[in-house]
Amino acid sequence: MERLTAHYLVETPLPPEEAAATIAGEQSSGTFVAVPGETAGLKARFAARVESIAPLETVSVPSIPTGRAHASAHRRARVAVSWPLENFGFNLPALVSTLQGNLYELAQCSGLKLLDIDVPASFAAHFRGPRFGIDGSRALAGVADRPLIGTIIKPSIGLSPAQTAGMVAGLAGAGIDFIKDDELMADPPHSPFDERVDAVMRVINAHADRAGRKPMYAFNISDEFDAMRRHYDKIVSAGGACAMISLNSVGLAAAKKVCDLGALAIHGHRNGWGMLNRHPLLGIEFPAYQKLWRLAGVDQLHVNGIANKFWEPDDSVVRSIASCLAPLHNLPRVLPVVSSGQWGGQAPETWRRTRTVDLLYLAGGGIQAHPDGPAAGVRSLQTWWRAAAEGLTFAQAVAHYPELAKSVEKFGQKK
Amino acid sequence: MERLTAHYLVETPLPPEEAAATIAGEQSSGTFVAVPGETAGLKARFAARVESIAPLETVSVPSIPTGRAHASAHRRARVAVSWPLENFGFNLPALVSTLQGNLYELAQCSGLKLLDIDVPASFAAHFRGPRFGIDGSRALAGVADRPLIGTIIKPSIGLSPAQTAGMVAGLAGAGIDFIKDDELMADPPHSPFDERVDAVMRVINAHADRAGRKPMYAFNISDEFDAMRRHYDKIVSAGGACAMISLNSVGLAAAKKVCDLGALAIHGHRNGWGMLNRHPLLGIEFPAYQKLWRLAGVDQLHVNGIANKFWEPDDSVVRSIASCLAPLHNLPRVLPVVSSGQWGGQAPETWRRTRTVDLLYLAGGGIQAHPDGPAAGVRSLQTWWRAAAEGLTFAQAVAHYPELAKSVEKFGQKK
Repeated sequence: MERLTAHYLVETPLPPEEAAATIAGEQSSGTFVAVPGETAGLKARFAARVESIAPLETVSVPSIPTGRAHASAHRRARVAVSWPLENFGFNLPALVSTLQGNLYELAQCSGLKLLDIDVPASFAAHFRGPRFGIDGSRALAGVADRPLIGTIIKPSIGLSPAQTAGMVAGLAGAGIDFIKDDELMADPPHSPFDERVDAVMRVINAHADRAGRKPMYAFNISDEFDAMRRHYDKIVSAGGACAMISLNSVGLAAAKKVCDLGALAIHGHRNGWGMLNRHPLLGIEFPAYQKLWRLAGVDQLHVNGIANKFWEPDDSVVRSIASCLAPLHNLPRVLPVVSSGQWGGQAPETWRRTRTVDLLYLAGGGIQAHPDGPAAGVRSLQTWWRAAAEGLTFAQAVAHYPELAKSVEKFGQKK
Repeated sequence: MERLTAHYLVETPLPPEEAAATIAGEQSSGTFVAVPGETAGLKARFAARVESIAPLETVSVPSIPTGRAHASAHRRARVAVSWPLENFGFNLPALVSTLQGNLYELAQCSGLKLLDIDVPASFAAHFRGPRFGIDGSRALAGVADRPLIGTIIKPSIGLSPAQTAGMVAGLAGAGIDFIKDDELMADPPHSPFDERVDAVMRVINAHADRAGRKPMYAFNISDEFDAMRRHYDKIVSAGGACAMISLNSVGLAAAKKVCDLGALAIHGHRNGWGMLNRHPLLGIEFPAYQKLWRLAGVDQLHVNGIANKFWEPDDSVVRSIASCLAPLHNLPRVLPVVSSGQWGGQAPETWRRTRTVDLLYLAGGGIQAHPDGPAAGVRSLQTWWRAAAEGLTFAQAVAHYPELAKSVEKFGQKK
């Protein structure tokens, strides 16, 4: 029987071998005492197995409370645990409960983070994964060889459908590739979903008729299940190409069902991610998170951005981008969505660190607060990326493309 | 316009007023720079409002990394923020994105935990909430005036449908009120869901015909969306009364859709909860979590147990139970599910701390590893609760009911 392996960062006041054995027991056949049915044969077939334990540093203070008397030494280790595929079958929620169920409750651990998972080919083969991914998103937006340049409608909330459509008209005219609702904008009384789709798609379809190229608009369908289905169908019937889901708020089962419909590219927003990830010894790291959502079929996934407005260090962003672009058996790659405080000045560093243009590069304020207006904002982003992909540094870009000066003046405290 | 208020525990290197303003801005109209459409009128209508800031202690080390140079002082405060209902409408995923979206990413905070939410009556009135809740679960199980006594089929994974049904027969004969699948048991090849339902319900239906009382069995339907629907219908057609969902693994939109179906009581398992809650300054506290799931319609919700096998302190468990039992406008109360290392000896302390028998009290190993077998385990649990509700202490219970001695001998290192 093939096995799926999870890699954890563990911190424990116990010998790491004991903590690892507890993790494996809790997440397979065990309970707190031996029970009659737990035979040797059953254990041999279904028990989780500790594959490796690589000791790391020892710390004196537990990273998260254990609810027990404090030990003076807490040892960290990388622990690999494997399960037979049979334990969960091709059932992503059951897989998540196996990988991340009661583990975080164990008093035997003073830190636990799921770092990555190794999925066997036979498991991945069951899933179609992203229907559009990078190539499909490029085809939909009509962009071949540079990052897709996108923006978020701002203010985040409060605009009417007509005001939104007005902005879209300007952005489409300026040559934008992609526009999205803010994740706070769903289906509120002042911008009912259907009216917004009608107003926006009227503008986008008219633009496409004139210009021969149709910017993608990611409408935020995040809602209760039936409403999401209605929203989805509305986008399809209006000629749209993309739907956005707040993955953590909507959840895995409903999001996968939406991905499976297959008619729209799914833009995966990870708002709430900090709760799952920000502590270094609690939660889940992006490589594991990305694989779960790639298996579910998300086409585009947020990864934050270089020199972002949030807490996340650049190294982490770079690793997330690499993880979306790495192969995963038969599954298409996920288009990394770079955003948060982006205005173009981060393009040279983004290129230097990642050497890829397979990105959806989003600027909200960075486009719409451009001193010469949103159209100038779009052109500025495109120019920044031309410069970046030419290998120019920030300073070289500014020197070579004088039209970038305005953006530096306005946003340049952030590189 | 009525408003919904969230209460956060915030830690920040900035003056708390600045951090609070950033939270409110990020989660309503704002982006990182002012944009043209963000007019005063729009702000007045849609902006989140900081309602109160109650300063707490100052600490020298940030609780979670900020990605910036470390400040020497990090101030903690309770911060209340409100939003007009219009911002999200009656859309629980949109509400979650508003309450918990990018907030956890803010570099301005070195700690952020959602403590509770105040939901106006008009908002709650839109939701039916638990269809069964406490009264409905009691009616289904035929238990009027004591805790429902339940167990989890153990080993967690590996038993065939026939083996499972065999255990169920014994437990039903012993007078159990409630049985559940382990959360690791979903629809694996060795126990296909439909076969398990058929095998188990054959036993339960036969028992009900004989005994006139039908124990509830919570089949774990957690799966991808279509499979969950099929599983649900299977339970209904087989005469079952309850379905279990791993709430965090399945997610809000699909879980609510299942709750809305209304034919089965929904047993909400919170595995993965430690990831969201265990750090004192990151994530979400149970009172807020419980309200979101009560709005969604979950009937029974796990709260861990007194002297549990996990890390959680008793105070936290007691508070969770109180939160399930507290009124929430028109919505029925949620049945608290007490579990984790329970064997009956914790009943006196559970009663002393909560003064309620409105509980579903689960013992897995505590019943099935009883020295005289599972039937004796069930009787022991019932006797422990009789003693507890009579106001007896642990020692008094053991003295007054000599039949409890066996359980103390086996499990008594845990009180």
